[in-house]
Amino acid sequence: MARISAASDANGDLEKLGSVIRGRRKAINLSQEAMADAAGIDRSHAGKIERGERNLTLLNLLRIAQALGCRPSDLLTESGL
Amino acid sequence: MARISAASDANGDLEKLGSVIRGRRKAINLSQEAMADAAGIDRSHAGKIERGERNLTLLNLLRIAQALGCRPSDLLTESGL
Repeated sequence: MARISAASDANGDLEKLGSVIRGRRKAINLSQEAMADAAGIDRSHAGKIERGERNLTLLNLLRIAQALGCRPSDLLTESGL
Repeated sequence: MARISAASDANGDLEKLGSVIRGRRKAINLSQEAMADAAGIDRSHAGKIERGERNLTLLNLLRIAQALGCRPSDLLTESGL
């Protein structure tokens, strides 16, 4: 889960995905910490992922989707990806 | 793009995705090297991704999808993810 520069996410794809993750999380009244714990990811990373500041790995995307009770493909589709 | 242990991909999700990537690549008669070059990823990683041996990042998934002329969400859906 690397820190990314704006240049490597020129289309803002990570921001779009992060925004969708945040939206889905809030829709089910899950705190950022609870989501991070359920996904088994570092709490300090959850906010960075939601802000599109981290180039998350596929396995972490799958874990986040599981914590949100949705399919990983749904998160991408809703992000327009 | 970290090396992964079998335990961190217990469901074989990376293998499923890698297999779908390989299938789509072959369907359009693209060599592994040509796909890697088009995606701007290291050639030595392409085979490892296709074999499910690397936990690829989201941005690399997007680049691979672009090289294959498909949507990232299609790759996940076809992988059952």
